[in-house]
Amino acid sequence: MKIAIAQLNYHIGNFESNTSQIIKSIEKAREEGVDIVLFAELAISGYPPRDFLEFDDFIEQCRLAIEKIALSCTDIAAVVGGPIKNETGIGKALYNAAWFLADRKVQKIIHKTLLPTYDIFDEYRYFEPNNVFELVEYKGQKIALTICEDLWNINDDNPMYQINPMNELMKLNPDLVLNIAASPFHYEQAKIRQDILQKNAKIYGIPLYYVNHVGAQTELLFDGGSLAINSKGEIVSELNYFEEDFQIIDNNQIHLLPKVSIRKQSKISLIHDALVMGVRNYFQKLGFKKAILGLSGGIDSAVTLVIAAEALGAEHVHSLLLPSQYSSDHSIKDAEDLAKNLGSSYDIVPIKALFEKFDNSLKPFFKELPFNIAEENIQARTRGVLLMAFSNKFGYILLNTSNKSEAAVGYGTLYGDMNGGLSVLGDVYKVDVFELAKYINRDKEVIPWNTITKPPSAELRPDQKDSDSLPDYEILDSILYQYIEKRLGPKEIIAMGYDEAIVLRVLKMVNTNEHKRYQTPPILRVSSKAFGMGRRVPIVAKYLS
Amino acid sequence: MKIAIAQLNYHIGNFESNTSQIIKSIEKAREEGVDIVLFAELAISGYPPRDFLEFDDFIEQCRLAIEKIALSCTDIAAVVGGPIKNETGIGKALYNAAWFLADRKVQKIIHKTLLPTYDIFDEYRYFEPNNVFELVEYKGQKIALTICEDLWNINDDNPMYQINPMNELMKLNPDLVLNIAASPFHYEQAKIRQDILQKNAKIYGIPLYYVNHVGAQTELLFDGGSLAINSKGEIVSELNYFEEDFQIIDNNQIHLLPKVSIRKQSKISLIHDALVMGVRNYFQKLGFKKAILGLSGGIDSAVTLVIAAEALGAEHVHSLLLPSQYSSDHSIKDAEDLAKNLGSSYDIVPIKALFEKFDNSLKPFFKELPFNIAEENIQARTRGVLLMAFSNKFGYILLNTSNKSEAAVGYGTLYGDMNGGLSVLGDVYKVDVFELAKYINRDKEVIPWNTITKPPSAELRPDQKDSDSLPDYEILDSILYQYIEKRLGPKEIIAMGYDEAIVLRVLKMVNTNEHKRYQTPPILRVSSKAFGMGRRVPIVAKYLS
Repeated sequence: MKIAIAQLNYHIGNFESNTSQIIKSIEKAREEGVDIVLFAELAISGYPPRDFLEFDDFIEQCRLAIEKIALSCTDIAAVVGGPIKNETGIGKALYNAAWFLADRKVQKIIHKTLLPTYDIFDEYRYFEPNNVFELVEYKGQKIALTICEDLWNINDDNPMYQINPMNELMKLNPDLVLNIAASPFHYEQAKIRQDILQKNAKIYGIPLYYVNHVGAQTELLFDGGSLAINSKGEIVSELNYFEEDFQIIDNNQIHLLPKVSIRKQSKISLIHDALVMGVRNYFQKLGFKKAILGLSGGIDSAVTLVIAAEALGAEHVHSLLLPSQYSSDHSIKDAEDLAKNLGSSYDIVPIKALFEKFDNSLKPFFKELPFNIAEENIQARTRGVLLMAFSNKFGYILLNTSNKSEAAVGYGTLYGDMNGGLSVLGDVYKVDVFELAKYINRDKEVIPWNTITKPPSAELRPDQKDSDSLPDYEILDSILYQYIEKRLGPKEIIAMGYDEAIVLRVLKMVNTNEHKRYQTPPILRVSSKAFGMGRRVPIVAKYLS
Repeated sequence: MKIAIAQLNYHIGNFESNTSQIIKSIEKAREEGVDIVLFAELAISGYPPRDFLEFDDFIEQCRLAIEKIALSCTDIAAVVGGPIKNETGIGKALYNAAWFLADRKVQKIIHKTLLPTYDIFDEYRYFEPNNVFELVEYKGQKIALTICEDLWNINDDNPMYQINPMNELMKLNPDLVLNIAASPFHYEQAKIRQDILQKNAKIYGIPLYYVNHVGAQTELLFDGGSLAINSKGEIVSELNYFEEDFQIIDNNQIHLLPKVSIRKQSKISLIHDALVMGVRNYFQKLGFKKAILGLSGGIDSAVTLVIAAEALGAEHVHSLLLPSQYSSDHSIKDAEDLAKNLGSSYDIVPIKALFEKFDNSLKPFFKELPFNIAEENIQARTRGVLLMAFSNKFGYILLNTSNKSEAAVGYGTLYGDMNGGLSVLGDVYKVDVFELAKYINRDKEVIPWNTITKPPSAELRPDQKDSDSLPDYEILDSILYQYIEKRLGPKEIIAMGYDEAIVLRVLKMVNTNEHKRYQTPPILRVSSKAFGMGRRVPIVAKYLS
């Protein structure tokens, strides 16, 4: 029995393109003599469809699209993920289902059992869990058809769940396991995923075929990396990362296939590739081509520009240099050098005169009050107005250039440098932004070395440095990582040896700046805990603050 | 047995103030000879604590605070809502619990069974459901202790749940039912809540004591309205709405108490009271006193100003009038008249010169391109910069003045009039903003009638009217209501008799402006479906768009 894994990039709610992509892959598979071709979890709608699932119209569109796909299943079977109504009248309105299509019809519908409801996942918001276990039979083979999380309670060691679907399914003696998934990327996730899947195949002694999504859905990045694993738990096929792929494996021969050597990629290169895909797909799926950003001469905007140029083509990214009276000479030169290195266009729009005009307009009210955060923010917001004016006039999408460290401690101006349609680096700590810059320069100087080596500064006051108001990034980022990714409390972090006053100050900065992050653009998620849909924190609260 | 209902306004994560408030109420109840005093669901942490629940430190703080409260329970018992760790190793990490405190100790801990996971609720993200049913015995009385949603599957007619906790508890022959809740306000909710609770008491023939939260938690508004209901299902005590309250009912005498006549309040007056509380608590809990807003002479900013003045005192709200060359004469006069009527301060900062300066700075790049949305937005954003400069300089929080109709169709400028720490009217359709204005003017002209009667306009172009680019608000708002609150699809709405082209255009505007709403400030929730945490829609998608 020949199995094809079709790893595709879907567009949420775009039934026309999702359907036609799936049908094309079915036709290709049929030509190659494939028996069953696999498509990802909720492929028909794209993942995650979120509250679109609450619209009967949306669910009906899913059903119609799958029935259309079924019509192309002659001499081949397909597994397609899609929602289906729960008609029992008991429990949530829907199931998250795998539709088994063959002979131009829906032959079987299998419901998902384990519904992730944590971090970025909200599946129990919509779906009723399955509690009936059965196999799918096709061409004499008994198939355990599972959906993503269903395989994530191996040995019953996942504390979140009380059922292990594979234990139930194995009682029915399946010949192989299929798993259709939507497993979003973070820089440690592929390894975790491979381990879990290999353990399943090995423990149950059964070959396993796994298909994942690839591509970006706003902030969520899907890295692909679909797999075929033999009954010894060895990976015999690993599909590409960050791009579509299609592989065929003959299940009769899988025990003869050699173990493949798994992709090895550094954390920084993974983040880099994920961000490039994230920017590219954001623009493609919205139907935009051109980006704009503010290029300050600093490292965050430099790395953002390079990533955008890789994603969209350097000719589709325009930079504005927006110097003020506090900008240092090297800032403009560093920014120009970078744009020239990339062959990317830029304009210089000084903001000094605009700032002074604001200053004059406000003089009657501010009188002799000293220069403070108000004036700093006017500069950042004037830049925001100019960037958005270009965006509105020429149809650019503004890219936000803030990093995760700044976003965490509120070191940024709302409606100023926090503007943008998409935040490229908002899940990358400053120390990793430096590593990204070095990675970008691995073969030649793309980003001027001066940008990388000079001390970070917002340049909103004379001789300002980030280190005037923040701890060293090495320390700051470590504390933030323990608090945000590892969810440790103050006592636990202090017990690790960090200075108590600094820890309390950092945690307080994080918690009192929730209101700023609430208005941040969506942030491409590359870590296990990004600001955004996976981290839900009250704004008006008094905890560690 | 005397039961006290303590309806309090908690502060999320503020263990010190929550604990001291609770202890004060216990002492007051003891003085009055109360046997059991009731506090709301998750009272100890405030509701909803959201992802703070994922921090061991936070859960430990909750436990310590409850143990401190227990020490004050001499000669009285208290029921306090708080999370507790699930130590079984199976299922989610926590339970949502009611702690029964007496004799200076935790006597019993009851877990919540039905965990709302829809709209603004995420309880299954954190909590494992209860499946063991037992009563609490105290002073010879057998008590069915339940938590909020546990009573919301009356007659098993709630399709979301498979268990009816009351059916299980009634098998144990309780004498009375206690329900501690966190039931957020929307303008139809109090009636729904009363019906459900009355049905419970009546069907099971048992007296019921219900305590709700009161006060605002960022966007979520809790209206209080706690209840005591006799075994015939008659309400014998109804606590105040939108303010703290404390009532004592003798359960031995409850059958003798007269039925009370339930509060009757119009939709608009409910919305008004809820918004006033929402603004007031937002400032109080953040420790701010003063608000600023842009007063245009239009109806949205007028209503926002009046509500803010009621919430904070007119002397704590400052308005900026920010006229441009496109502002009509009556705009400034209407705005000034309103501020004077309220006795509230204002400044006039014309933006024409600033706009021209931006225009000049951009001239070399925009050349002869015609005036369009770019220039319109520069005006809105210039106002945004000025308002935020005042906010930063003087410590005002900027109030956002957008209404729900605008937010729905994207009729507003990101980083301009969409700015603010809190959106006051973002869940109020334009037609209801007019009703609010009339309600405010019910006794005398507070808002100039000209503001109410003139055609709405953004005044960003000569002679601009909202009706140039939007359907009439009567039609627009009806379509939006069907789509947003009722979640009907295009076919269903068109079948109601609305023009097909208008319906499709409106739905498309809603779905293509998700990116703008993503960056909107938190919106005070007064309807059953507000933009914000209860409505989760993909940004990059292609559905009805």
